[in-house]
Amino acid sequence: MGRDSRYDILFEPVQIGPVTAPNRFYQVPHCTGMGWQYPRTLAAMRKVKAQGGWGVICTEYNSIHPSSDDLPHPYASLWDDSDVRAHALMTDAVHEHGSLAAAELWYGGANSNNLFSRLPSMDVDSRPNTKGHPYQTRAMDKQDIRDLRRWHRKAALRARDAGFDVVYVYATHGYLISNFLHPRVNTRSDEYGGSLENRVRLTRELIQETKDAVGDRCAVAVRFSADEEIGEDGQPIYGERREMFEMLSDLPDLWDINIADYSVEMGVSRFTKEAALEPYMHWVKSVTDKPVVTVGRFTSPDTMVSQVRRGITDFIGAARPSIADPYLPKKIEEGRLSAIRECIGCNVCYASDSIGVPIRCSQNPTMGEEWRKGWHPEILRKKSSEARVLIVGAGAAGLEAARALGVRGYDVLLAEASRELGGRVSREAALPGMSEYIRVKDYREQQLIEMPNVEIYRESPLTVDDILAVEADHVAIATGATWRKECFDEERFVPVTEGAALSRVFTPDDIMDGKLPDGPTLVFDGDGYYMASVIAEKIRAQGHAVTLVTPSDSVSDWAGKTSERWRIRTHLLRLGVEVLPSKSLVQFDGEIAELECTYGGPSVTVPVANTVMVTARKPNDSLYRGVLGRMSPEDLPFSLRRIGDCDAPAIIAAAVYAGHRYAQELEEAVDEDIPLKHDRVDVGQQPI
Amino acid sequence: MGRDSRYDILFEPVQIGPVTAPNRFYQVPHCTGMGWQYPRTLAAMRKVKAQGGWGVICTEYNSIHPSSDDLPHPYASLWDDSDVRAHALMTDAVHEHGSLAAAELWYGGANSNNLFSRLPSMDVDSRPNTKGHPYQTRAMDKQDIRDLRRWHRKAALRARDAGFDVVYVYATHGYLISNFLHPRVNTRSDEYGGSLENRVRLTRELIQETKDAVGDRCAVAVRFSADEEIGEDGQPIYGERREMFEMLSDLPDLWDINIADYSVEMGVSRFTKEAALEPYMHWVKSVTDKPVVTVGRFTSPDTMVSQVRRGITDFIGAARPSIADPYLPKKIEEGRLSAIRECIGCNVCYASDSIGVPIRCSQNPTMGEEWRKGWHPEILRKKSSEARVLIVGAGAAGLEAARALGVRGYDVLLAEASRELGGRVSREAALPGMSEYIRVKDYREQQLIEMPNVEIYRESPLTVDDILAVEADHVAIATGATWRKECFDEERFVPVTEGAALSRVFTPDDIMDGKLPDGPTLVFDGDGYYMASVIAEKIRAQGHAVTLVTPSDSVSDWAGKTSERWRIRTHLLRLGVEVLPSKSLVQFDGEIAELECTYGGPSVTVPVANTVMVTARKPNDSLYRGVLGRMSPEDLPFSLRRIGDCDAPAIIAAAVYAGHRYAQELEEAVDEDIPLKHDRVDVGQQPI
Repeated sequence: MGRDSRYDILFEPVQIGPVTAPNRFYQVPHCTGMGWQYPRTLAAMRKVKAQGGWGVICTEYNSIHPSSDDLPHPYASLWDDSDVRAHALMTDAVHEHGSLAAAELWYGGANSNNLFSRLPSMDVDSRPNTKGHPYQTRAMDKQDIRDLRRWHRKAALRARDAGFDVVYVYATHGYLISNFLHPRVNTRSDEYGGSLENRVRLTRELIQETKDAVGDRCAVAVRFSADEEIGEDGQPIYGERREMFEMLSDLPDLWDINIADYSVEMGVSRFTKEAALEPYMHWVKSVTDKPVVTVGRFTSPDTMVSQVRRGITDFIGAARPSIADPYLPKKIEEGRLSAIRECIGCNVCYASDSIGVPIRCSQNPTMGEEWRKGWHPEILRKKSSEARVLIVGAGAAGLEAARALGVRGYDVLLAEASRELGGRVSREAALPGMSEYIRVKDYREQQLIEMPNVEIYRESPLTVDDILAVEADHVAIATGATWRKECFDEERFVPVTEGAALSRVFTPDDIMDGKLPDGPTLVFDGDGYYMASVIAEKIRAQGHAVTLVTPSDSVSDWAGKTSERWRIRTHLLRLGVEVLPSKSLVQFDGEIAELECTYGGPSVTVPVANTVMVTARKPNDSLYRGVLGRMSPEDLPFSLRRIGDCDAPAIIAAAVYAGHRYAQELEEAVDEDIPLKHDRVDVGQQPI
Repeated sequence: MGRDSRYDILFEPVQIGPVTAPNRFYQVPHCTGMGWQYPRTLAAMRKVKAQGGWGVICTEYNSIHPSSDDLPHPYASLWDDSDVRAHALMTDAVHEHGSLAAAELWYGGANSNNLFSRLPSMDVDSRPNTKGHPYQTRAMDKQDIRDLRRWHRKAALRARDAGFDVVYVYATHGYLISNFLHPRVNTRSDEYGGSLENRVRLTRELIQETKDAVGDRCAVAVRFSADEEIGEDGQPIYGERREMFEMLSDLPDLWDINIADYSVEMGVSRFTKEAALEPYMHWVKSVTDKPVVTVGRFTSPDTMVSQVRRGITDFIGAARPSIADPYLPKKIEEGRLSAIRECIGCNVCYASDSIGVPIRCSQNPTMGEEWRKGWHPEILRKKSSEARVLIVGAGAAGLEAARALGVRGYDVLLAEASRELGGRVSREAALPGMSEYIRVKDYREQQLIEMPNVEIYRESPLTVDDILAVEADHVAIATGATWRKECFDEERFVPVTEGAALSRVFTPDDIMDGKLPDGPTLVFDGDGYYMASVIAEKIRAQGHAVTLVTPSDSVSDWAGKTSERWRIRTHLLRLGVEVLPSKSLVQFDGEIAELECTYGGPSVTVPVANTVMVTARKPNDSLYRGVLGRMSPEDLPFSLRRIGDCDAPAIIAAAVYAGHRYAQELEEAVDEDIPLKHDRVDVGQQPI
């Protein structure tokens, strides 16, 4: 198969100042949860994207000086020569595959905590830390501005020395430079504040100084927001943005454009669809001759072509789609569109970075494992034997195990009890807003169809006897998990009711089975991620009064990590769902729910006809236990493993990872006692 | 001066199995926010404690296998040989000073997230993650238990190879081993669950296997909780604890005893005082012949002696007091009691670890800087010249700058506008529960009194002219900050009222000045740490109705990092303070406060006569700006710096740090562009 000529335009080279990108696929700067703490992990990950055909590959944000320190959120740094050496690992790997490497320079201002470096953060004024740490910034004086400019220049020189082809001035996302630009934030009375010209001064100086320092060899890019804010009606409010842009439009070699509302730019698929930035930034190319890149969680090559042809952007910017599929460009080039692993917009990548650990991905289980496990998203070790593998259950874990084992060349039997593949993925994708999650199943089903060595058996529930009768050398049980009706009281699971009222206690599985409550309903969220809010929305859509109760202070607390927490609560309030945080459900008698304040305040009662318990799950491990009950592991004629939710119920990304790990490690020499290469400081024999 | 013979007992050697501690000072395992990520930083820090006289020095928790991974919370590891090399840096340094080194082995169970390692966590059953991550554990089967025991044994052997003298079995704090012991948590039906004997089985096995593996050379310690829970009346509930303890009492070589309620064990001084564990664990020594260690934030040598003499404990366990003063034992030994830097119980150390960065300390600014800056808590570089230094302001920053410069031998003038030293420290220490904060001032005042080269001028407010007239070579402005009356709307500061109602708007400074509101009061917390809650308590104590409003979902959100958030809210509710989270204050007219829901829900009004705004602070930098307004920095006859809250308002620890940094770096060759040695992976020329 070859490339469809419709997509030729995506593979045109594009000049960026002194350098030329080989095509229009541009991995914009994105966080990795790795940064300077995991240099080999990071370089190996970016390398795979170059192999996969991304023409430009950027770093995450690079601190230019320890006074801009974001830990525990991992960031890259350009502080000293050790950084130059670390980045060179990445630029060498990127150049090897013909791509350009770009470094984004960063100074955080009130957005950086400096909890690691312990230097005062600096900003236009003494401002509170925007992440809520009890640290205000220093109001920058003239010497501070001179220092900043010198640090920026030195970092640009280090970037050049590390081999980068593009160097960014990062003037958006609420970091320092954008604060200087902002008409309300910048309250300075000196030549860096007041008039638009004054507020633009620092950005202009940094662009010019970066060009002076490295412009002979490197392109200079500016990351800039096309609007000032999004109105309540969803329409852009540009404020001075166009004027500001016109003042600077010809200075850099490239414009990397995003928008003011990060929860749209980085929107989860539940609330934001492909190409969502266009309404806010479509005007940019009409006021500059310089190439433009922007993002939009693009996974459809037709949308990409349309964006370029209609003059919205020159480059197809991507962060999440390049994480879900590092080979996206190559697959379009080779006409293998059905092989694209499309981003599902779950933002689990972002969550990892928010938490401070290397990113993982629901679609791409090899993300972050390229160095420490030697995994590759497309290239897997050939099978070690002629063994047959039985996989019981075609949910996220089972599908991925079958797919990856299929790629390795194993004979695989995939037995699914129901008619549908996908397990929880297919069930959850039918809930409000969750449709893109189906891509986890679609990609794998599509791949499996093309594999002659994988046989899929639908509507094939297996018993212990069936499993023992199948002549398999390896058996993986991937039978998922079932939502519980109980609460978890931090020690054990406890029922909230008994007797007849039990029939009025639902679980997410009931809702997904189409068994819906009738009448006023309390949704109890002891889980803390998206499920309770989606269930509440679903029941509210039936016209019932819904009260969402959670012992957490926040609704969908963990969704704060994926950037959707604020959006979920506003969405629920708009739908008319009542929200009661900081309350535990202690009893429900079929008519009244009794709630206890988690801080010892007064209890309250809520009259409701039903409750939906979204608390915890019980692994469906009876087959696994049943087989082990029949025979000890040593006596079994096959190896036996449980994988995914049936082993340890968790998020979809964890199930895909478990399935992939099973397939990668089957019949391979993996030391279970030392399962990871450790990207850490090895002190060797050096004294301190 | 020599040691007071009253304290001789503290300096007796104590045998622990095959090894002997040189004295009774025992730094128990404590987190550092360093762990395996910063091995040199960690070893240099522990080394200073050995120098300071701690007889036993423990690591933080050491993961025995990647399936127990706590990131972003930093932990140490004993996974492979690189760990052995890293730990050897520490054990060598500890042995050099005649102390014993101890390693705590750790397996997290449902308490560990494994977000870094991506292996399923394992526990007695499939349990929700206790930190709220959407990951449940795997229910351990027999093979899992065998694996765990093998990993524990291998980790013990690595600890021995790294040079440790004591190896811990860690059977408390809600981690895996304690879950096996727990009557409600352990729901297993196999030989590891059910009867007490069965639940104790794993702990017994691990103790015995550790002794078998390393007992010839290393002592084996067990960390164990003396009670099962604390009753509502504050009294211990022992449950099976005594029986359990008796079953195991002679197995290990040492018992490290803590209690069930971590918020008491690790209590902040606002709620918990010295020796708080005694009521719960006093019985332990009566049922074992083995040496016992316990903690209690001990800083008074008399309390320590009393604890030993009365048979409560054999060792004076300490985490926080050893962080605040690594030389605490040595100072007692040398009879320099007034030189002890007593822990103030603010838990900023714990906050750092909670956040995932190396710990800092309000009292000891050198904590964590031993390696990267070469700082030492007691030994400072001698002065580089005969220069005179003027410090304006004797708050936390000014006092510490004067003290450290005084130690260096500089001539220092310390000018304080008021009669009292301490600045905000003295003011805040007078608020309810905050009295121990005064130790920040007391220690420094005490030290300064003994320094002939430091002159203190009280009631000496300086003008710009005064500063220019003082013949100083260096001037540091440390004039603190003032609480604002405005809200911060994420962009700028905005007033909530004007006109006559302004007189009904208070700030924490008003309250600390004794200017208290009269009548129902709304305390608005835009700060998020302890201040608003302390102010609310103070006003409530006057008998007024108090409503605490915060835009955050949580009351005192950041105090979650210091382990006091839950306690603060329950305390306020008990005092009768009404709490309204997730609300912004938009207007106050002197009679009515208008509150907006931060999620776009309906607004509400609260009838109150006063508001106290706890939002942000304005640096008192008019002197600094005034001097610079008179002359450019190059023309000044002295170097000029602003330090502490006057530079960047933050927590007390940051002000102490800023003062110390000023003193350490004055007239020293510090490269402002590369201010830190970076404890990171240096890839050198290795390819990936």
